Amino acid sequence: MIIESINNEKVKYWRKIRTNKYINEYGEYIVEGEHLVEEAIKSGKAKYLIILDGTNYESNLEKYYVNEKVMNSVSLLKSVPTVMCVVKICSNETDFGKKVVLLDDVQDPGNVGTIIRTAYAFNFDTVILSKKTASIYNDKVIRASQGMIFHINVITDDLINIIPKMKKEGFIIYSTLMNGEITPEEINDEKFAFVLGNEGTGISESVQNLCDNSIVIPINNKCESLNVAITGAIIMYIKR
Amino acid sequence: MIIESINNEKVKYWRKIRTNKYINEYGEYIVEGEHLVEEAIKSGKAKYLIILDGTNYESNLEKYYVNEKVMNSVSLLKSVPTVMCVVKICSNETDFGKKVVLLDDVQDPGNVGTIIRTAYAFNFDTVILSKKTASIYNDKVIRASQGMIFHINVITDDLINIIPKMKKEGFIIYSTLMNGEITPEEINDEKFAFVLGNEGTGISESVQNLCDNSIVIPINNKCESLNVAITGAIIMYIKR
Repeated sequence: MIIESINNEKVKYWRKIRTNKYINEYGEYIVEGEHLVEEAIKSGKAKYLIILDGTNYESNLEKYYVNEKVMNSVSLLKSVPTVMCVVKICSNETDFGKKVVLLDDVQDPGNVGTIIRTAYAFNFDTVILSKKTASIYNDKVIRASQGMIFHINVITDDLINIIPKMKKEGFIIYSTLMNGEITPEEINDEKFAFVLGNEGTGISESVQNLCDNSIVIPINNKCESLNVAITGAIIMYIKR
Repeated sequence: MIIESINNEKVKYWRKIRTNKYINEYGEYIVEGEHLVEEAIKSGKAKYLIILDGTNYESNLEKYYVNEKVMNSVSLLKSVPTVMCVVKICSNETDFGKKVVLLDDVQDPGNVGTIIRTAYAFNFDTVILSKKTASIYNDKVIRASQGMIFHINVITDDLINIIPKMKKEGFIIYSTLMNGEITPEEINDEKFAFVLGNEGTGISESVQNLCDNSIVIPINNKCESLNVAITGAIIMYIKR
């Protein structure tokens, strides 16, 4: 059976879970295109597939075939893909691992996706996004992460709430500042996390106040700052 | 005097130098907005200013006042700025310095701008862009560089032509590959350059063939690759 009406209840549901409100309510979101669908399947988080009628797609997952009009009504992309999948959110909010990145209102989806991709590459365990950070269900974030978002523990929470919990579990928390106290090479903790701040305004004061220490990456003093994803990558490379 | 007609000869010229063809022909390009104009002035490369009538802008440079319609016809931005400046191209194609980054058809303007910003931060001397790399006169490249593009030597040329010249001057040339031979920490040359490749296809074979050796950044083996600006940043940080 091919779903042909954009008013079909399933189709209406798929459109709903393109917005953060319903993603959080239902705990599911959609990813588009072969590469990302493949990564979602590999991660075990894909629930079922939405496939353009006439497309051959091998998978044991449940499949819904739809026409182009339906695909179009659900897709956020200019060139509509032949396959999408519905992915379930599964954040582990009790086990953070040992190496964590915290994002304090990082706004650019490209930066957030790149940070997640890099975190996975360098064996960090968890990325925690403040509520005003670009949503991990934003298509651009997923795309910039190259699908690595499915393979690493990603949590969205208030940093103000989660940092004290992490400290109780033995984490040392670092801010990243232009005039920070130590270089990445000097970090020497069994469990540590570092905070990356907003592209324009940096780390908020309330979060800075919760940090145990601060990291600086020494740069040419005529240069104002590094891009936030670059700062994160250098620290993660050194502490990989 | 305020220029009020978009058909004024000056205004026509400014619109021309928003395209690569005329930028290369006349050796001048335009940057928009206070922050970038300020950086261009600091660098000594700004020639004169284009200012929205009614705006107070302190500078010793020659000033052209224009109305909103004219500003609008020249600007590439959604929210038209109050100040722009015309900048002269000045690449030094004979002195590369000692530390160089080569971009082989890097396509995303954000990546190119970020690489230039990072190169300046870590005291690299020159960034060389292949002809199919996103143009340094692309507004997004200039913006992502945070204006650092004015402070570092940036050259656009065929890598196939320029690599042999660099070798004659004693440069050791490295490619960056997923299965490269050495880590960034093992680079140990008085003068060296490394090549970053296209986001999708990597470094072209003809350029790879010209390289003396290759660099790898060790990552989680389940992860396909790093973002190109991240790869560049890690190497530049280590060899800063």
